[in-house]
Amino acid sequence: MRLRNVKNAKDILLSSSKFVSDPSVYKNRWNDYFQNDNPICLEIGTGKGQFLINMARSNPDINFIGIERYESVLVRAVQKEIDDLANIVFICGDAKNITDFLGKEIEVLYLNFSDPWPKKRHSNRRLTADNFLKCYDDIFKDLKRIVLKTDNAGLFSFSLENLSKNGYVLNKVSLDLAHDDIFNVLTEYEERFMALGKAIYYVDATKS
Amino acid sequence: MRLRNVKNAKDILLSSSKFVSDPSVYKNRWNDYFQNDNPICLEIGTGKGQFLINMARSNPDINFIGIERYESVLVRAVQKEIDDLANIVFICGDAKNITDFLGKEIEVLYLNFSDPWPKKRHSNRRLTADNFLKCYDDIFKDLKRIVLKTDNAGLFSFSLENLSKNGYVLNKVSLDLAHDDIFNVLTEYEERFMALGKAIYYVDATKS
Repeated sequence: MRLRNVKNAKDILLSSSKFVSDPSVYKNRWNDYFQNDNPICLEIGTGKGQFLINMARSNPDINFIGIERYESVLVRAVQKEIDDLANIVFICGDAKNITDFLGKEIEVLYLNFSDPWPKKRHSNRRLTADNFLKCYDDIFKDLKRIVLKTDNAGLFSFSLENLSKNGYVLNKVSLDLAHDDIFNVLTEYEERFMALGKAIYYVDATKS
Repeated sequence: MRLRNVKNAKDILLSSSKFVSDPSVYKNRWNDYFQNDNPICLEIGTGKGQFLINMARSNPDINFIGIERYESVLVRAVQKEIDDLANIVFICGDAKNITDFLGKEIEVLYLNFSDPWPKKRHSNRRLTADNFLKCYDDIFKDLKRIVLKTDNAGLFSFSLENLSKNGYVLNKVSLDLAHDDIFNVLTEYEERFMALGKAIYYVDATKS
């Protein structure tokens, strides 16, 4: 994603009721934050938030946490009309530190159009690399479930291999999400990409 | 594959030294047939034999069995120049009957451009359907290994799901075999297909 610097991004985030500046406070206590016992789903790399916001709006009985590394990007999420949504919250942070602010409390992890890190020497930065998958083991509540979308063939095949090697079963695979019969909420990136008629790859994988 | 009837196909097959008309004789004894203890690999749907013949030529220390349903197709395999190859044999038969003529003696199963059977009601005819995968359990010697190539996205995603659900680990996945760094011997079909610049999907999967 192209990154435009946003002036006062930090101030805008801090003034939003949907932003938590110190998420470590809520580790193992996110259900307290949401004030209910509903399941909690996570998106790492939530970007400008369209996917998570639409998911939250469609699923009022599920809580959604969105993590984004860049304040200048995340600010576009909290600026959307989300004040009425009680089941969404955004965090600014790095995926490699998620166990600092999440305990075993997540039901589904969504990875949408993550950075493909195409160079082999950067492969351990991909969000489905071994080190990340091991890290996710500590945030899933019970059954581990990862739902991934990407337009990048290299990231997709890497993810299929790595999920499989790490004990995940690939319950649903699509090489053309737009034309397969799978429920799909679009990300901003995906909308633009699909308009070009290009294929979106998708996998829904679980590990007991 | 378009099927042209070949006159005297049966006679041509029977006259070939590389064709076994009653393969059940060699069940659990294929190493006796080849007169060595080398590993045995299998291709189901061997077609006109190009893949298997080139594999046999490149790997003299591996034995290759090719199974093809249609005599009129298989005849094109035995008519190729293969008299000097001691490590290849062709069988005419149906995949669903392979345990009639194979015991636990296969190291690798190759499935190349199998019929995709696109209609859902025919899905159990796909060579990676549950019933076939269970059947293959009885022909693998030790580690189960299936290497599949196809140009059909539907068959590919179905195969990834089904291999995974049946306990296979996907060690290598490619969405564009021609441009990935994977050893590849072309089939007749694949040569024509690649010339059009279309993507070939590939998976190499194992089960302990």
